[in-house]
Parts: sequence; C-alpha cells; structure tokens
Amino acid sequence: MSKELNMNEIVSICKMRGIIFPGSEIYGGLANSWDYGPIGVEIKNNIKKMWWKKFVQESPFNVGIDSAILMNPKTWEASGHVGGFNDPLMDCKNCKTRYRADKLIEDNAHAKGEDVVVDGWENEKMLAYIHEHQIKCPNCGAFDYTDIRQFNLMFKTFQGVTEDSANQIYLRPETAQGIFVNFANIQRASRKKIPFGIAQIGKSFRNEITPGNYIFRTREFEQMELEFFCKPGEDLEWFDYWKNYCRDWILGLGIKEENLRLRDHSDDELSHYSNATTDFEFKFPFGWGELWGIADRTDYDLKQHQEHSGKDLKYTDPMTNEKYVPYCIEPSLGVDRVMLAFLCNGFENEELEDGDSRTVLKIHPALSSFKCAILPLTKKLKDKALEVYADLAKEFMVDYDEAGSIGKRYRRQDEIGTPYCVTIDFDTLEDNTVTIRDRDTMEQIRVSIDELSSYIKRSVTY
Amino acid sequence: MSKELNMNEIVSICKMRGIIFPGSEIYGGLANSWDYGPIGVEIKNNIKKMWWKKFVQESPFNVGIDSAILMNPKTWEASGHVGGFNDPLMDCKNCKTRYRADKLIEDNAHAKGEDVVVDGWENEKMLAYIHEHQIKCPNCGAFDYTDIRQFNLMFKTFQGVTEDSANQIYLRPETAQGIFVNFANIQRASRKKIPFGIAQIGKSFRNEITPGNYIFRTREFEQMELEFFCKPGEDLEWFDYWKNYCRDWILGLGIKEENLRLRDHSDDELSHYSNATTDFEFKFPFGWGELWGIADRTDYDLKQHQEHSGKDLKYTDPMTNEKYVPYCIEPSLGVDRVMLAFLCNGFENEELEDGDSRTVLKIHPALSSFKCAILPLTKKLKDKALEVYADLAKEFMVDYDEAGSIGKRYRRQDEIGTPYCVTIDFDTLEDNTVTIRDRDTMEQIRVSIDELSSYIKRSVTY
Repeated sequence: MSKELNMNEIVSICKMRGIIFPGSEIYGGLANSWDYGPIGVEIKNNIKKMWWKKFVQESPFNVGIDSAILMNPKTWEASGHVGGFNDPLMDCKNCKTRYRADKLIEDNAHAKGEDVVVDGWENEKMLAYIHEHQIKCPNCGAFDYTDIRQFNLMFKTFQGVTEDSANQIYLRPETAQGIFVNFANIQRASRKKIPFGIAQIGKSFRNEITPGNYIFRTREFEQMELEFFCKPGEDLEWFDYWKNYCRDWILGLGIKEENLRLRDHSDDELSHYSNATTDFEFKFPFGWGELWGIADRTDYDLKQHQEHSGKDLKYTDPMTNEKYVPYCIEPSLGVDRVMLAFLCNGFENEELEDGDSRTVLKIHPALSSFKCAILPLTKKLKDKALEVYADLAKEFMVDYDEAGSIGKRYRRQDEIGTPYCVTIDFDTLEDNTVTIRDRDTMEQIRVSIDELSSYIKRSVTY
Repeated sequence: MSKELNMNEIVSICKMRGIIFPGSEIYGGLANSWDYGPIGVEIKNNIKKMWWKKFVQESPFNVGIDSAILMNPKTWEASGHVGGFNDPLMDCKNCKTRYRADKLIEDNAHAKGEDVVVDGWENEKMLAYIHEHQIKCPNCGAFDYTDIRQFNLMFKTFQGVTEDSANQIYLRPETAQGIFVNFANIQRASRKKIPFGIAQIGKSFRNEITPGNYIFRTREFEQMELEFFCKPGEDLEWFDYWKNYCRDWILGLGIKEENLRLRDHSDDELSHYSNATTDFEFKFPFGWGELWGIADRTDYDLKQHQEHSGKDLKYTDPMTNEKYVPYCIEPSLGVDRVMLAFLCNGFENEELEDGDSRTVLKIHPALSSFKCAILPLTKKLKDKALEVYADLAKEFMVDYDEAGSIGKRYRRQDEIGTPYCVTIDFDTLEDNTVTIRDRDTMEQIRVSIDELSSYIKRSVTY
C-alpha cells in the first residue's frame, strides 16, 4: 500500500531534508522565492545534465549556447515583449486583492468542473465573461472590480549611472531570444547545416502578478529551451519528431504515464504565427499544469529580428544555393517546474509489511542527489567506511552517515531518494564485501567492494 | 617555437570558432556583454563541473546550494552592500569621459612602473593624490574633473506592480549572501558538524562603471564561491588549507606556474573584519589581474545577519555544548574570469618542423569542449564513422567532421582544443582499428575501436 504526498507534505519534507528552502527565510522571505538546498541543488543539476546529455551531447543535430541575461533592449521590441508581454490586472475595490483576470475566469470555471481557456481574449471579452457569470471576489465575496489594465511582465533595470530611458534594460523573460539573435553567428561558427538546433539552459525572470504553487510559478526561474531550425514545409514533421523525443525523455526518467497528458492547441488558441503547438501537462497535486510547451513558431522570430536589426538572417542551402529564413520548432521546459513534477511523481508514503511505514522519493537514479550512501554498522568501522566513501566520491556523489540505527539511516536515505545504501559491517574487513540495499525493493545483496563502483554506475546511467 | 596569442587574436579566434560572441551583436551589442557559443558553453560548463567535483563531490566537508538571485533587500543592508558597495565616480568636465578615480590612480602609477593599491582610500585621499600627481584626463589631456561621488554598484529593479521603494529589490552582487542566510537551515538539514562548507555557483550582477578587458570584467558574471565555517581560532589553519586546495585545483588543470602569483593583503589593505586575505593573480595579456580571492572573513557576515534578522545563527558544538558564531573562510572565483585565464594560458601559435604553423588551444582535456573528433577519411566511410560517433556520444561530447582535408580538420580541432582526433580509414573496415592523433604532441597511434572509449576517458578525467 502506498499513497502520494500532498503539497503540504512535499513542501515540509523538502525543507526538512534540504531539498528546497524558502528564499531569504531569515528576513521573512521574498514573495514566492525558493532556494535549493544540498539535496535539491544536486537533483536540479542532474535534471539539467540529463537534458543536455540527450538534447546536445547525444543529438547529432544540436549545439549549445549560454547567452547573457541582459540583452540589448531592441531584442524585446523585435520579439514583441515590450509591446505585448502583459498580464491582465484587476483589483477588487472592496478588499484590494489583486487578480489576473484570466486566472480568475479559469479558476472559477475549474471549480464548477468546466474547462475555459482564456489565452488570447481581449479585455472586453474577459470583463463580459466576469459580468455574465457574476464571478465574485474569491477573498471577500464582493463584486466590485477595477477595470482590467495590461501590466508588462518584464523586470526593468538601469545599466550605467543615470536612470533614464536610454539606460533602461530588461531581465530576459525567456532564453529563446538569446538563441535567435545568435543564429547567424552560430550557424557560421559551427558550420551546421539545416536542419540543426541550438539549445540553452539559463535563468529567466517574469514579474508575475500571482506567483505561487511552490516552485511551479516563480518570478525567477530556469529554462531549458531548444530552437530547432528546419526547412519550411518540413516543420510539421520535425514538430512530431521533437514531440516524441521530449515524451521519451520524460517518460524514460520515470514520469508515470498516468501523470502526463499531451494537449494540442486548437486553431482558436494557436498564436497567429504558429503552425502547431502541444502542451505537455503534468498532474500536480493541485491539478493539471503546463510542463513543456512544444511549438512550431514558423519563421516568425528570425523574421522579426531581421526586420528590427536590418541584418540578413537567411540561410543558404549549400547544395541548391536556395536562400530562406528557416522555420523553427521550440520545445521549452522549466527546470523548476519539471523538478516539481519529478518530486510529486516520486514521493510516496508506503505501508510496509511489518506494519511500519516509510516515505520514499522514487526518483530515477540518474536524477537522485546521491547515487549511494555509505553506512558503517558501528563507529569502529569508520576507517574502512571512509576509505570506500573516498574511492566512490571520485566517481559520483556519495553520502556518508554514521549516526543512528541502520533502520533510521535507511529512512533518511529513502526520503531523499538515494537508490543504494551500502552497509559496511565486520565481514567487510574479512572478505571485502558489502551489503547493498535497494531503495525501491528494499532487497539486499552482497557485493565485492571491487565491483561496487561499476554495479552502481550501471544502474544510475541514463 | 611557439608564442602566446595577444588579446585581439584571442577575441578573434573565439568569435570565429564559436567560443565567445559579442552579446546582442545584431543590435550593436550591449556594453561589455558576451555570449558563450557552442564551444564556449562546453568549456564553461566543464570548468563549473570540475570545481563542483573537487569542492563538493570529493570534499568530505562541503555541500552545495543554489539560492535565488532575487533576495529580500534586508540581506543587502546586513551585508553592507546598500551602504558601502560603491565605486568612486569622477567625470572629466572637458570631454565628459567618466572614470573610476581609484582606477585612474592605479593605471597612472602602473604606466610609470609603480604599484599603488587604492583599496579603502577615502575620496579626499584620492583627490589629493590626483592633484599631487597632476593626473591628466587620459582621453583629452585636460585637468578639470568633477568631484568624486560614490555610485552604488547594485542593479535595482521592482517586483510587483508599483515602482515604489517598498517594491525595490536588487540583483545580487555576489552569491555569498545566499549562503549566509541559509546557514542555519543547511546545517540543520544536512546535520553537518563544524568544520563544514557550503558551495555555490551562480550569476551575480554589478553595475560596473568601466567594464572591460573582454570577459575579465562584465556587469553580468558567474561566481563559484565556497563559505567554509570553522571554529574561531582554527581559522588561519583552514585559511591555509583552502589556499593550498585552490592552488592545487588550478595548477592541476594546467595553469602554468609562471602565470600565477599569490599576493597576501597587507595589514593596511585588509578589510576591518578580515584576519587574512590572499589574491590569486593571473598574468593576462593586459597584465596581472585578480582571479581568486581567498579571505578569512571571521564571524563578520553571520553576526551581521544575526543582528539584522534577529535570528540566532550560533552553532552548538554537539560534544561540548559550546555555542558560538563560526568563523568563515571564503574562496571566491569568477567563472568567466578563470575561463579567460584558461584561454590565455592555453592558446599558442606554433611553428611546425615542416615550416607550417598552427594555432592550438592547449587546455586540460577535462575542460575541452569535445573529448574527441571523429574524422572519416572519405565520405564513403561515413556510415562507420557515424556508428563510432553515436557510441562515443553516449559517454562524452564528440565532434564529427567530414569536410575538407584531414590536415585542415586537424587544425580546426587544434583551435578549439580537442585533445584527440580519431580518423576512420579503410583499414578500419577490415581490422576495427582507428588512428588517434594527440593534440599536443601530434603523434598518432593505432587503437582498437573496442578500447577507444576507455582510452579517451582515462585521459580526460580530472
């Protein structure tokens, strides 16, 4: 018998075990900001490594980039973020609570078991809907709202000494544009031929009105984006290729099929420039939430940059000498968000046969913080245990724990998802073997120390 | 015969080969911002990985963290950044050129072969020096400056909808404070005992008046910082321990001894709270520059946060029950800066015996972008070559190049620092062997494909 943890339980165990702490906690925090602790930083880094491995290292098509967060502000005029990257803002006049009008509508529909997608509605349409359905303020129950006003989500700052508009720049709201502006440089330097892709992992910032749901929606977040450039007309084929590639990646890392659904955007919902868009949605404890957006963006972005920069961003086919602006497929995934998915997907409360229970994080060993923990049965075995620890630590992350009963130590490792516990006992000194205990099956086998590293490495590879 | 490259040559080859591009280049750039291309992102990631491996994975003392860039602004009051993190700013009234007064003095002294360290001087002292030495404007030759005014280096932004002081926050100017504010949470969750350290890699931002020297001083940069907590009185011992550890790390990765010097801060120069500080300096083409600062910061930071937050940040010794605020040793290294050091240290123009010449990036194989390149002798060998490529790409980054003569392909790989070139020829089809050519010695040996992966892995491990 096992059951999944709810959000409160996940937040609590993540804090207790050093996975995620509230940001700036000693100062009362900062909005919905979070810091990744000793266990969390490893899991997060492993997610990024596994993405890079499959999307850059093992892909014959793709190369990487790491572009700056601070970009020339003309970038955001071209991309449409200066003009159009807004949230519809509305306050309750009675209790002063601030809402995103689109979310107010969606949450209201959701509570009634209906499904309304507000993407792309004008202010008038939202206001009309709110009036028609008499959606009251969820906080105070009043029905007395301000008008809807559009609020730009980019964080502004000033570089240089004077705070005037000439010095105003933005924190990037997405990593994608850092790829587009480098398209020509990268194509030339890497001598890649179409089709090829450019991948990037990095921080982005959005001044969200209503951040929330733990690390699901934060103002500062990290993205893993691929922009894959192909010939116009071949875009839908590649769209399917990457959709499947992404699906394989996430299922291969242990996301359960029943927790994942793919939702194709309807024609109404599609951006005007998009030929196709599919959202990967994950079943979080608070409901289905968007995880991965795969979009066929056609030649929209490169053409925008071509117009605004005056630079030629066309590609010349080396065989046919044909010149064209490539189409682009964009799979865009949030690191924090997919980490939350792995945590929600993996945490379980298990009732054991002996009536005891345990909390276990069933996460793919490639993603777990430690690949194994070294547990000396008694402190007399410390020297041998530290020797084994030091050897393995050259190869991967290893924990060392000598405090408390073996049972307690197993539980602690279960809660942070360590796939293997390696116990050093008195037989170890005699025959150079150790006991390996498996996190999920709790079965134990005896293995020679000489084979320990290769045994573990085999199991933790993705 | 070989000679090092100058800065212009390095900037040029880095752009040509996809190591570093000017940021936002199609829009005329943004101040001194830079983007890491397909080769550069791998080198940069490898530097971070090797640091994490030695400072977290292999160290029995240290754990990691990844804290948010946006922090509660009280953090920066406690750390002294709101009050004291300023540059002394001065303009030439004649030509309007803006200077940092301290740099103006240091550069002037430097040009005369003297060594003046301005750290910690008051405005009056700097003004007096400038007048005494009649330092003229380097741009127009006038001697007509504004007063010196202090300019705070933190980037400001607003979170939430209204741009008032209640919503004003900062981009962190260093990663260290994200560690200090999490000290108690991490100590409790990781159950680490003093001495132990907390390591972090992440972006920081400083609104520098005079960014420059390529990626040496940029407004957006990445840091690798360790805060190592120990018992007061044991701090100088640990200071030496980490100084040696850092030295071993950087020399082990191939920085030449003659390019590195350690400079201890004199008593005058030491911050008021510091017991000892040593700067690692690297001999860049533009002169010696600070690379790594190792500082004994005593209990200054934790005590500041204790005062400002009202939280108890004392540590209780589990054996003696003694309560104290730990002392802290901080080795702080800039990722971009140390990457520039590895590039300057490694790039060479070599005259070969046959009268030819080549440019080669002699960088440690653990840091090189690709661990090997697969080069089919002719396009007829493509299938076999791609098969070898796909096998190796599961284990590490591999390049594939079939364009041009073998000699030209060797040169391209030399320029990006690929340690091994693997040539697939017609014998490969017969006897399953390949030629491996070593980047530095240019020697070639014949190896079985079955041994290829382990041969390369052995040589690229750090």
